[in-house]
Amino acid sequence: MDQALELANKAFNKGEVPVGALVLSSDRQIISQAFNQVEQLQDPTAHAEMLALKEACAILNKKRLVGYTLVVNLEPCPMCAAAAMHYRVERIVFGAYDPKGGGIDHGACLFSHRQTLHCPEIIAGVREQESQKLLRFFFQSLR
Amino acid sequence: MDQALELANKAFNKGEVPVGALVLSSDRQIISQAFNQVEQLQDPTAHAEMLALKEACAILNKKRLVGYTLVVNLEPCPMCAAAAMHYRVERIVFGAYDPKGGGIDHGACLFSHRQTLHCPEIIAGVREQESQKLLRFFFQSLR
Repeated sequence: MDQALELANKAFNKGEVPVGALVLSSDRQIISQAFNQVEQLQDPTAHAEMLALKEACAILNKKRLVGYTLVVNLEPCPMCAAAAMHYRVERIVFGAYDPKGGGIDHGACLFSHRQTLHCPEIIAGVREQESQKLLRFFFQSLR
Repeated sequence: MDQALELANKAFNKGEVPVGALVLSSDRQIISQAFNQVEQLQDPTAHAEMLALKEACAILNKKRLVGYTLVVNLEPCPMCAAAAMHYRVERIVFGAYDPKGGGIDHGACLFSHRQTLHCPEIIAGVREQESQKLLRFFFQSLR
């Protein structure tokens, strides 16, 4: 989560919503890392998680990420949570909860449906306050 | 939907789950079109909708698709439905319902939550049976 927060800070400095994500192997090696690039790429789907997941598959030359962990400092939105499901990630570790846009513990509650193809283990609220503080500071600076 | 079904047939012939998608302008011009390429690209997120939405933005040089319509022959999964939300598409027209993987009328029911940032108009079940037949034929051929 240290590294995810560092990536989030990089996003912040580029005027992006401060979200950073990593894909880790089962022995905790960093496979890929990315920060939110919605503004830079002018693509509303260029979330940190989507970029990190796609890059991990490219680096590993794998179609799925069975056994891998996605770490991100904010609760993933339904798009990213569903992508993680399609990639079959083993575990999602996230920082701050996102009552407005989150799709795991809020709203769509993606892994709470019987139809869910694959349910990663969820570890939520890791260094929640640090992440929340960074995000709050970012949105306040926009006002 | 004619064109979406044609694209779905192309996917079928390439051994892909037969799903085709288009993005249309408000005056019904086709902006982009794509079919499912999960196998070809070895990317479980390379759904027809994701590819068509991304391509439409690239072609139009726009960040969002306000006023545009996504047409697809199968109920979008939660990832694609959420992506359409992020792109702010005006309308989603889909063919067959997907009780197993769909994220609009099933499972996550993405647009049924109060937190939803943007709710496209949904027109569901257009030429449902044709699409259902094609999908059923595909999955039977795998057995």
